[in-house]
Amino acid sequence: MERTLKMTSVNSNWDDFHKKDISEKLPFFTRDGRLYDCLFAQQFDRKLLTSLFKTADALRAITQKKEGMDHAGSLLSHTRAMLYFVQPSTRTFLSFLNACHILGVKTSEIRDTSTSSEVKGESPEDTVRTFSSYVDMIIMRHPTPGFVEKTAWLMNLTNRPVPIINGGSGKDQHPTQALLDSYTLYRSFNGDMDNKKIVMVGDLKRGRTVRSLTYLMKNYKNISLAFVSPEQFRMEPDILEFLKRHNIPFTETGDFRSVMGEADAIYMTRIQDEHDHSGESKAVDYSPFYFRSEHLKLIKKTCVIMHPLPRRNEIETSVDADPRAVFWRQERNGMWARAALIAHIFGADQKITR
Amino acid sequence: MERTLKMTSVNSNWDDFHKKDISEKLPFFTRDGRLYDCLFAQQFDRKLLTSLFKTADALRAITQKKEGMDHAGSLLSHTRAMLYFVQPSTRTFLSFLNACHILGVKTSEIRDTSTSSEVKGESPEDTVRTFSSYVDMIIMRHPTPGFVEKTAWLMNLTNRPVPIINGGSGKDQHPTQALLDSYTLYRSFNGDMDNKKIVMVGDLKRGRTVRSLTYLMKNYKNISLAFVSPEQFRMEPDILEFLKRHNIPFTETGDFRSVMGEADAIYMTRIQDEHDHSGESKAVDYSPFYFRSEHLKLIKKTCVIMHPLPRRNEIETSVDADPRAVFWRQERNGMWARAALIAHIFGADQKITR
Amino acid sequence: MERTLKMTSVNSNWDDFHKKDISEKLPFFTRDGRLYDCLFAQQFDRKLLTSLFKTADALRAITQKKEGMDHAGSLLSHTRAMLYFVQPSTRTFLSFLNACHILGVKTSEIRDTSTSSEVKGESPEDTVRTFSSYVDMIIMRHPTPGFVEKTAWLMNLTNRPVPIINGGSGKDQHPTQALLDSYTLYRSFNGDMDNKKIVMVGDLKRGRTVRSLTYLMKNYKNISLAFVSPEQFRMEPDILEFLKRHNIPFTETGDFRSVMGEADAIYMTRIQDEHDHSGESKAVDYSPFYFRSEHLKLIKKTCVIMHPLPRRNEIETSVDADPRAVFWRQERNGMWARAALIAHIFGADQKITR
Repeated sequence: MERTLKMTSVNSNWDDFHKKDISEKLPFFTRDGRLYDCLFAQQFDRKLLTSLFKTADALRAITQKKEGMDHAGSLLSHTRAMLYFVQPSTRTFLSFLNACHILGVKTSEIRDTSTSSEVKGESPEDTVRTFSSYVDMIIMRHPTPGFVEKTAWLMNLTNRPVPIINGGSGKDQHPTQALLDSYTLYRSFNGDMDNKKIVMVGDLKRGRTVRSLTYLMKNYKNISLAFVSPEQFRMEPDILEFLKRHNIPFTETGDFRSVMGEADAIYMTRIQDEHDHSGESKAVDYSPFYFRSEHLKLIKKTCVIMHPLPRRNEIETSVDADPRAVFWRQERNGMWARAALIAHIFGADQKITR
Repeated sequence: MERTLKMTSVNSNWDDFHKKDISEKLPFFTRDGRLYDCLFAQQFDRKLLTSLFKTADALRAITQKKEGMDHAGSLLSHTRAMLYFVQPSTRTFLSFLNACHILGVKTSEIRDTSTSSEVKGESPEDTVRTFSSYVDMIIMRHPTPGFVEKTAWLMNLTNRPVPIINGGSGKDQHPTQALLDSYTLYRSFNGDMDNKKIVMVGDLKRGRTVRSLTYLMKNYKNISLAFVSPEQFRMEPDILEFLKRHNIPFTETGDFRSVMGEADAIYMTRIQDEHDHSGESKAVDYSPFYFRSEHLKLIKKTCVIMHPLPRRNEIETSVDADPRAVFWRQERNGMWARAALIAHIFGADQKITR
Repeated sequence: MERTLKMTSVNSNWDDFHKKDISEKLPFFTRDGRLYDCLFAQQFDRKLLTSLFKTADALRAITQKKEGMDHAGSLLSHTRAMLYFVQPSTRTFLSFLNACHILGVKTSEIRDTSTSSEVKGESPEDTVRTFSSYVDMIIMRHPTPGFVEKTAWLMNLTNRPVPIINGGSGKDQHPTQALLDSYTLYRSFNGDMDNKKIVMVGDLKRGRTVRSLTYLMKNYKNISLAFVSPEQFRMEPDILEFLKRHNIPFTETGDFRSVMGEADAIYMTRIQDEHDHSGESKAVDYSPFYFRSEHLKLIKKTCVIMHPLPRRNEIETSVDADPRAVFWRQERNGMWARAALIAHIFGADQKITR
């Protein structure tokens, strides 16, 4: 494969590279018109999203039958992946693992660094390069901001790079969550993504899923957003700037009921108290930002209720039975969207959609 | 698949459902005349047991050769299973895992809840539903009594249920252990299960394997049982009541030697001191309930010595070389019996026995 | 398969067996002219090494294409392996795991004894016998010296033995590391292993990789060795005796630069401070035993720089880009060499090289 971007001196120094705007970096992680590494939600444009959604839909369709599942399982049976998840994660991990299994990718797992050579004083860069020796792809969740990007950058400078997929990196990026959220909207709206009102609710300041999803909204026409949060956890200014720059209208409010009726999708999130500095979450009354059974009669018949899960009390369990509660489907969509992404990276997507 | 039992209001409330007699619950976990969920030893009747044993025997036979193993590995290659083992377990876990591998089932493992979203405050029910999103079956060991049953019940109320197999739940049920114990008797007795005397030895009060196996004995004709235990760890009254109700004769004794000579099978168990409240096991002299080399000359030439393992000192290691010591084969039988069970649940058993 | 060595009384007692010279033990771990268990570097003679290297090369060649990888993945698709790694290990574990995956071997992992029945008071011998019940091979790393050998010995006395591969046992043996190191020399020297000068650098006293590799050097003609180490960590007398016995010339020095220019291969190692009794490593200035960028101009154009990894500071990262730095390839060679070994044990190597 020929690299789209030639290696230049500026790319061979991490600090210089890291400082660049994401749009400048993207070609470095692309080959032959395909994603090579998947690191940022900003890598997904409308055309790519539509292509991935169609692959995911086709994969679901063919795997309804044993023959189709066995066909899917043969597509990447010659590849091996490493799932390197240093941070606790259940659903992202399992979702990726089973996406690999659907495509026949053989998997290795590192989930606990205490079993690793890190105890022998190896640098994180050497550790990751070691992993890459044995496999054809690394799917990585890492707590250090920028570490996944740095790994991909480093790999691309070696003579045996492998694709890196970001499974959640620090507080900043979780691109496949944005991918599955968009895919859920796509399926919920029967493919018609334009002219929609999306309401995002909860701890918007510290929830990376709402941040990433917001980035993707620029791909669609005539989207409007409403942000519903406690005063302390309002959406960060960088996102609001982004929306203004792209002429995407938004409102901010603390009154959930006031925007329920207009929503085409309501995206619920939990309070992110693991990011508290000194228990500030406890000072907040989060209950006005719960979705309750009584709200079902206030929302449109076509409105969908989403949640990245895990939930605490943000959505009453009695809501689950309503057909508009799509968060369990959303979770399962993650597996299919990730399988589509992996198929895309290895160029196997055309063998699915044909 | 059509459900055998229609959903009724009484089934939609867990507390009501849970209180019902097991015999009333069984249809709820059955579909199209097959087990859908495997939760209780009471689900195994003689016909089903015989069918599973024949499947297990056939699977062993065909997998002697590479072609046969590859055929077995293709039967369920379109399915994925989750092994959710919250309690420490080696042999049950490995036995199920390799049973899956024999049939080509792709596996995900959760063995350590510290990597799970439980740390983020998710309910156990949501956690299990998440797991089910990615797979076609969940094999579960859980310390909370009734939790595995509740999971199966809950799954059956959703629009995407998956079969649940109980891999050991609290102190009460471990149905596949009973299955493999019966299978070991079946093989040891060349298929002739009737008219046998079974001697069970050790901590009968707290050993769930002897409890579950006793339930299965009602499936066979003219069985008699002898319970050999310290006074403090005698078989519980509910089991003795069960035997009386089904006219199965039994005796209780503390004198192991007195019943050795009549036994067709001796089922040894270790002291279950992990269930001690305050070290009561230490007050018991367990050595009269050991099987020693010197006992080999006292038992029938056809008598088999079983043990669910792990053992401590209940059976001298010098006994292992005697052909009547079948506990290592018993362990391996577990893998085959579980593979047969999984094949049954997915309706693949006919492709094995044909 | 018929055993090469008949069972004799002396073999049936571990203490007697263990005391024997390794050369006397080897037949016990061999069947039909093939390795059955892989326990000691001394099992590899020149003929076997050449055969394994050719298998590894052939495997790499055919797996360049999807069809070839799928063929490789069918060779041992009827087998299952257990990776029992009680000691922390990343690269050896991953290397073996992916070697299994390349050949289609299905894998089970035990990496944390806290999930095991060892907590229930089972003997280590019973635990290993349990593992063997479910699989066709055990790959084992264990901290207790001699434990892996004892396991293999014990298995061979049962009626259902499985091959045991030593993945690193105590301080003494790590035969597959020696195998991959030799394979790296073989590839670096284009198959011409004779007449070479090998320089080994670092903590030679406690590094088992340099010890094992030294044993293998007797298989080649006109090899000479130079040992470069701090005074406190010189190569142990038993190895020096071994070299004298086999007329392999060697020198010892503390002056790294003095031998750099003659080397055909430089084998770097890190300080093994995990084996310190009381922090003695801290008293040593290890920096004279580092390989730095400035040394690149002092070594032959054909000299290769090796390291078993993980490294700390023994090799500057700026050295990595030099084509003579082969330690990353060495790491990857481990996967291929181990795959070749597994294929050999199961007699599948001829299906690769044909």
